[in-house]
Amino acid sequence: MLRSPKSVLLLSGPNLDILGEREPEVYGQQTLEEHVSAARLAAAGRGLTLDHLQSNAEHVLVEAIHEARGSYGAIIINPAAFTHYSWAIHDALAAFDGPVVEVHLSNPAGREQWRRTSVVSPVATGTIAGFGREGYRLAVEAVAAILDT
Amino acid sequence: MLRSPKSVLLLSGPNLDILGEREPEVYGQQTLEEHVSAARLAAAGRGLTLDHLQSNAEHVLVEAIHEARGSYGAIIINPAAFTHYSWAIHDALAAFDGPVVEVHLSNPAGREQWRRTSVVSPVATGTIAGFGREGYRLAVEAVAAILDT
Amino acid sequence: MLRSPKSVLLLSGPNLDILGEREPEVYGQQTLEEHVSAARLAAAGRGLTLDHLQSNAEHVLVEAIHEARGSYGAIIINPAAFTHYSWAIHDALAAFDGPVVEVHLSNPAGREQWRRTSVVSPVATGTIAGFGREGYRLAVEAVAAILDT
Amino acid sequence: MLRSPKSVLLLSGPNLDILGEREPEVYGQQTLEEHVSAARLAAAGRGLTLDHLQSNAEHVLVEAIHEARGSYGAIIINPAAFTHYSWAIHDALAAFDGPVVEVHLSNPAGREQWRRTSVVSPVATGTIAGFGREGYRLAVEAVAAILDT
Amino acid sequence: MLRSPKSVLLLSGPNLDILGEREPEVYGQQTLEEHVSAARLAAAGRGLTLDHLQSNAEHVLVEAIHEARGSYGAIIINPAAFTHYSWAIHDALAAFDGPVVEVHLSNPAGREQWRRTSVVSPVATGTIAGFGREGYRLAVEAVAAILDT
Amino acid sequence: MLRSPKSVLLLSGPNLDILGEREPEVYGQQTLEEHVSAARLAAAGRGLTLDHLQSNAEHVLVEAIHEARGSYGAIIINPAAFTHYSWAIHDALAAFDGPVVEVHLSNPAGREQWRRTSVVSPVATGTIAGFGREGYRLAVEAVAAILDT
Amino acid sequence: MLRSPKSVLLLSGPNLDILGEREPEVYGQQTLEEHVSAARLAAAGRGLTLDHLQSNAEHVLVEAIHEARGSYGAIIINPAAFTHYSWAIHDALAAFDGPVVEVHLSNPAGREQWRRTSVVSPVATGTIAGFGREGYRLAVEAVAAILDT
Amino acid sequence: MLRSPKSVLLLSGPNLDILGEREPEVYGQQTLEEHVSAARLAAAGRGLTLDHLQSNAEHVLVEAIHEARGSYGAIIINPAAFTHYSWAIHDALAAFDGPVVEVHLSNPAGREQWRRTSVVSPVATGTIAGFGREGYRLAVEAVAAILDT
Amino acid sequence: MLRSPKSVLLLSGPNLDILGEREPEVYGQQTLEEHVSAARLAAAGRGLTLDHLQSNAEHVLVEAIHEARGSYGAIIINPAAFTHYSWAIHDALAAFDGPVVEVHLSNPAGREQWRRTSVVSPVATGTIAGFGREGYRLAVEAVAAILDT
Amino acid sequence: MLRSPKSVLLLSGPNLDILGEREPEVYGQQTLEEHVSAARLAAAGRGLTLDHLQSNAEHVLVEAIHEARGSYGAIIINPAAFTHYSWAIHDALAAFDGPVVEVHLSNPAGREQWRRTSVVSPVATGTIAGFGREGYRLAVEAVAAILDT
Amino acid sequence: MLRSPKSVLLLSGPNLDILGEREPEVYGQQTLEEHVSAARLAAAGRGLTLDHLQSNAEHVLVEAIHEARGSYGAIIINPAAFTHYSWAIHDALAAFDGPVVEVHLSNPAGREQWRRTSVVSPVATGTIAGFGREGYRLAVEAVAAILDT
Amino acid sequence: MLRSPKSVLLLSGPNLDILGEREPEVYGQQTLEEHVSAARLAAAGRGLTLDHLQSNAEHVLVEAIHEARGSYGAIIINPAAFTHYSWAIHDALAAFDGPVVEVHLSNPAGREQWRRTSVVSPVATGTIAGFGREGYRLAVEAVAAILDT
Repeated sequence: MLRSPKSVLLLSGPNLDILGEREPEVYGQQTLEEHVSAARLAAAGRGLTLDHLQSNAEHVLVEAIHEARGSYGAIIINPAAFTHYSWAIHDALAAFDGPVVEVHLSNPAGREQWRRTSVVSPVATGTIAGFGREGYRLAVEAVAAILDT
Repeated sequence: MLRSPKSVLLLSGPNLDILGEREPEVYGQQTLEEHVSAARLAAAGRGLTLDHLQSNAEHVLVEAIHEARGSYGAIIINPAAFTHYSWAIHDALAAFDGPVVEVHLSNPAGREQWRRTSVVSPVATGTIAGFGREGYRLAVEAVAAILDT
Repeated sequence: MLRSPKSVLLLSGPNLDILGEREPEVYGQQTLEEHVSAARLAAAGRGLTLDHLQSNAEHVLVEAIHEARGSYGAIIINPAAFTHYSWAIHDALAAFDGPVVEVHLSNPAGREQWRRTSVVSPVATGTIAGFGREGYRLAVEAVAAILDT
Repeated sequence: MLRSPKSVLLLSGPNLDILGEREPEVYGQQTLEEHVSAARLAAAGRGLTLDHLQSNAEHVLVEAIHEARGSYGAIIINPAAFTHYSWAIHDALAAFDGPVVEVHLSNPAGREQWRRTSVVSPVATGTIAGFGREGYRLAVEAVAAILDT
Repeated sequence: MLRSPKSVLLLSGPNLDILGEREPEVYGQQTLEEHVSAARLAAAGRGLTLDHLQSNAEHVLVEAIHEARGSYGAIIINPAAFTHYSWAIHDALAAFDGPVVEVHLSNPAGREQWRRTSVVSPVATGTIAGFGREGYRLAVEAVAAILDT
Repeated sequence: MLRSPKSVLLLSGPNLDILGEREPEVYGQQTLEEHVSAARLAAAGRGLTLDHLQSNAEHVLVEAIHEARGSYGAIIINPAAFTHYSWAIHDALAAFDGPVVEVHLSNPAGREQWRRTSVVSPVATGTIAGFGREGYRLAVEAVAAILDT
Repeated sequence: MLRSPKSVLLLSGPNLDILGEREPEVYGQQTLEEHVSAARLAAAGRGLTLDHLQSNAEHVLVEAIHEARGSYGAIIINPAAFTHYSWAIHDALAAFDGPVVEVHLSNPAGREQWRRTSVVSPVATGTIAGFGREGYRLAVEAVAAILDT
Repeated sequence: MLRSPKSVLLLSGPNLDILGEREPEVYGQQTLEEHVSAARLAAAGRGLTLDHLQSNAEHVLVEAIHEARGSYGAIIINPAAFTHYSWAIHDALAAFDGPVVEVHLSNPAGREQWRRTSVVSPVATGTIAGFGREGYRLAVEAVAAILDT
Repeated sequence: MLRSPKSVLLLSGPNLDILGEREPEVYGQQTLEEHVSAARLAAAGRGLTLDHLQSNAEHVLVEAIHEARGSYGAIIINPAAFTHYSWAIHDALAAFDGPVVEVHLSNPAGREQWRRTSVVSPVATGTIAGFGREGYRLAVEAVAAILDT
Repeated sequence: MLRSPKSVLLLSGPNLDILGEREPEVYGQQTLEEHVSAARLAAAGRGLTLDHLQSNAEHVLVEAIHEARGSYGAIIINPAAFTHYSWAIHDALAAFDGPVVEVHLSNPAGREQWRRTSVVSPVATGTIAGFGREGYRLAVEAVAAILDT
Repeated sequence: MLRSPKSVLLLSGPNLDILGEREPEVYGQQTLEEHVSAARLAAAGRGLTLDHLQSNAEHVLVEAIHEARGSYGAIIINPAAFTHYSWAIHDALAAFDGPVVEVHLSNPAGREQWRRTSVVSPVATGTIAGFGREGYRLAVEAVAAILDT
Repeated sequence: MLRSPKSVLLLSGPNLDILGEREPEVYGQQTLEEHVSAARLAAAGRGLTLDHLQSNAEHVLVEAIHEARGSYGAIIINPAAFTHYSWAIHDALAAFDGPVVEVHLSNPAGREQWRRTSVVSPVATGTIAGFGREGYRLAVEAVAAILDT
């Protein structure tokens, strides 16, 4: 399954499937679908294709990252709760050979202490956090810029 | 799928499917089935219906909690080992709008240090721990009382 | 002074005498008297007698626990602020030969960090926390079930 | 027992009854009586009445705080050693509805590490520390100013 | 001095004036001037004006933030070394009433432990880190999107 | 430049120049000028003269403290954000030979964890915190009393 | 499903399916298949049969351990990333009644700090770490020796 | 009330009144009375008189220590549970002008972690721990030797 | 080499050979020889023989403890600096089958933080600290009493 | 002194000379001699020669490691208690140019907290722990395999 | 501004301008001028020129370090209080391409805990601390030796 | 054995006997002999005699320090690995009455975390670290200067 280096895999972690319903004062009222549409639009505008996968299961994300090796040019990931403990995702991303952008809708620095520890950040190229509905779109911009370099 | 607010979802986490066989000096000799029967009996006596789900998979529990939103009146959960690290279950429960009761068969305070940290407690209405075979039944009593208020 | 093993000693720690007036948004609007009445009613329904003692003085509680040895079948204790530092109550309870149930009206896990450390839990049979006005009654249920075993 | 809002309760914790004799190089040579007299004089000068209670017993202080609710306009407290562990006093003060001023004769910041943790400060309106014989008087000034606002 | 809400203040902290010369393997070979030009271009493309100030002096940055209150619509700040200890900048930003975007050229999560603590993040709307020469431009994008909302 | 021992130097740290505008629910609505006027009035009433200096620059405060040596009888300092990290101010104050009073408008004990660490306290004679608009005036009282001794 | 006590279950955790491709300078160039073949050969040489299961899913490993109870004589496990947080695997192994050997290809002691914490070790009979391609074979030797005793 | 410098005050803390009944495998089977008799005998043999006071109340011990000032030549104290938190007893002992010997029947170093912190030790002349029934007697020997010096 | 169970081995750790010369304000002016003489005298008075060995070499002490197994009835040890890190002496003492008394001349609780950690205490029967020249003699008393039981 | 690269130096740390007698429930009943014989046999079977040295003295081990440089092909070391603090052995091993295998008879992960810190592991090629009498033999296997590569 | 590689920049941090007056029992009675003269003399003796700059302002030191790049052969810095928190100076020094010698007049290891953390040391070639008036001169010796190599 | 106060004892700790061969990229290529020759030359130039002792055995160093009391004017010590745990050397140096200079060839601040803790520094007059082959010579300069004062 060989895709163009111009393709991006967007991954969304646990509980993001109920976005818009869940604590809207923290995460906003947009659904995940709306976030992804915005990201896809932005990708198209930069000449990129974008596939999206949401899963509440760690192993599904781990395996999606494995398959992305050699087929996608970059990964954008919102690890959600997995941010704080999934060394399995950490190890999977460490084996990916393209840029990895970590996105968070809310700004963890302004919330509980435990949200400030990310086991994903050490293997990410960069992080974008706190921009709500703009986060996914900005991540696409970041990826596009890196792939252009 | 709209159920009565008088319905309760009882969730059992990993390794509880081998209850009765596993370290019986700690967890007692009753099987999970016997625990659930006692809970169901107690629920019936309080005019509640009770559904039960055991899973060793985090995502199955996360999704069951998602589906419980709007359909069940309350959740009782024995997160077992997930108690100590599953922020995904924490986040899912935080998005549930009814009471959440956390149950532990043994008393974590009298055991290893790491068992004293619960990532579930901050989003639980209350906790019942250490009462072995009575735990599930007491949790039903607690839920019934809260729903009556 | 020999009482029946069917008798329970209910102990309430410091500041619980002003319950109902103190931070009602946290501890509810019921007075201690109302809590105790509910507990006594529940006890009667389970064939138990229940004596209650509230004290703001640590030594009064310690000595009540001493006297309970050999005369009461079980102790229910809401140690209130003593939860966090009274090793004297810890040691007294460790010398008691029947079941000990620790009760908290609010859920300490959802409050300040220091409220999460209990020096009483390691010597309690079990803990019930976060159920407000139902807490004392549930503790009686728990004791009744343990004494029946 | 309804007193004027212009009345202040001054509380002194354990070992302050031997002030003047105890480590005078740290706590000064004035007796507690002299400190209280100065405070009372200052209070009179500001149109306030001031009652004083010293106790080595935590529960006596807790209960005095309870009784101050609705009868005194403000509390000034030198918790002495209780500063570092009496959550019971913390909880009692949290239930008091007027201003609370915490006073220390010496400056804990310049002494042992453990003296820097105060469980009383989080429920105090303000703190005055390190001014020796002027401390009680300054606390009265502070209370007078707050009550005037 | 009243400017349009469409104006952005871009602040650069200590040592950024020698960007391009300093550890180029970490921070890239572009000079600060080049970064700022790219940011200004992006701003223009979004209908924003952008002023830039670099300083090695904490008080100069603090006072620039003070003056930005009421005159600029948003602040983008790369606090550089001040990220880790300048509570003065933290307090100044907390008093600013528009969005604040924190930018880092490198990804602190992949470097020394002390670089992972930011005293600025708790008062930032969001953070963008690790994208090198794209960082300033992405921050402008983020600000533009927020101001559009 | 020899002044009377009856003169006091009042120092205000970073961001205090925007007092009244900045987070008024925390710091009150008075301007710094109003605080200083109250302090000056109190000083006059006690036969003291009072000079005031506010600076957002650490070195300006450090040098003011140097110059105060031998010319002022006492220092009152509200170090604001510098409270938490300026060892330079700590060292400068340690070399001052008169009393030093540390003032905080709000009560750090009731706020974020990091606000509870003061690097200034160990070299202060005493601390006054949490009394808002009364703080500066009380500090003058404290200084007057100490100088009288 | 009753097997001989001479049968061994070899379990491989997340990301081991891409062994040989992932960070070969750390984990070596052999594929998992090659590791398993070596282990199987060694087992045959010691009169043992060996079944292997790799999974990126925690629950699949947990359930494999459950099924191993009563059917396999021993478990060899390379928990990979689960080493650091899967209390579910810890609990499952604790309920297994035969020897458990923990294997790591690389030596965690020579790598990042977080790799030094294993939640599996407390329930393992022994650990073999750092021997790369020899690790699986040595683990079989260890199991054979223990089963012989 | 002036006694001879040859008189010793022996203080026993909370729960020691039930010695012999409480966890005899840890604390031995002797009653407190037996311990005190042995101590008194030893004292007599060394030409000392010995008074004993047991209390479960912290303030009773604090006040006994106050009264001992100027009247007893030395204090022997088994602070029991107060060892770990009573800064009030710490402060009282700090104001005593003669030798203070801290005694523990069991050896805290061989028990739970929290038993290893003593807030009394810093103000004790010396400590004797772990010698069970010999502890009180050895403490008398120690005091006798110090008073002889 | 079979000796009577009435024989005691007294061990003195590093730097104790210069006792009397080293920091006499902390350790006293007596030489080690004088300490040992006092201990020997006390032993004789209790019908015990006492051999003494001082060494600055850890392995000499370890081997002396090995040889004491089966030949001496008890060990008294002043581990001096080894108290804080010699797990080798810890392990050797753990293999000794008679009582072990740990002695310190000064009271570590009143000194530097690092002196409060003893790796020897967990394997000692009891500890005697802070009694200077009386320490060795009291340790003999303790041993005599234990051997008598 | 030039030996074959096929020669292995086996080092045993403090207290291992009394193996078999010391805590046999933890370390087994075999003597060190028996362990070494098994290791030597295994070595012979793999075409290796093996020299053994046990010492309770750190410097003897350090110097043996020095001499092994250039003369032995590999080192197997059971550092025993030195595992936890001997940075001298750490530094000596760091200067050795062949493989180093660390062996422990018991599994430190299942014992006291302090046993989990090894200062030797960071310079070891790999570790084998928890296999009792098989440990030394397995270490020889590991070395043989590495030397074959 | 091109100077010879034989030129050295000596930097002195905050409060060093009052050297000789400030805590002379700690820092000695020499003025900064005397220290610098000694350093200059030593430099001349080694064929080096030496420029000196003292500042209480962090940014002045940062910019002096910037300007030293390409013009001075080495930097000697006594960061004084900045030692403990100025990451800005750390970053500036990291960008300097010659040797950097850190000097302290007193020995921080013998003083308060917080003085033991230096954020400057990780980017210094070496450190000289505790030699009072000899410190600056020894630093020149060190620099001379390094430049000679 | 009375020597001149002009004599210096130079001590080198474990593994320094293999200097030049051990990690030359860290410690340089000079042998210990060369270092000592340089030191001796420098000593002669300053009118000092210098004796040197290297040992891998802690007790040999301890006893050399004992013997230096009264016979040598100063000690220079490179404690090597003992830096991090030898409280025995700490205690021995504390009893030495002349200046003590601690030397390290490499700069511990730029290496592993554990190398930053020195148990020797608190009893050293001063420290010289990071100057490689110049370190011993600079230490002699420092000693010469101190002895001249």
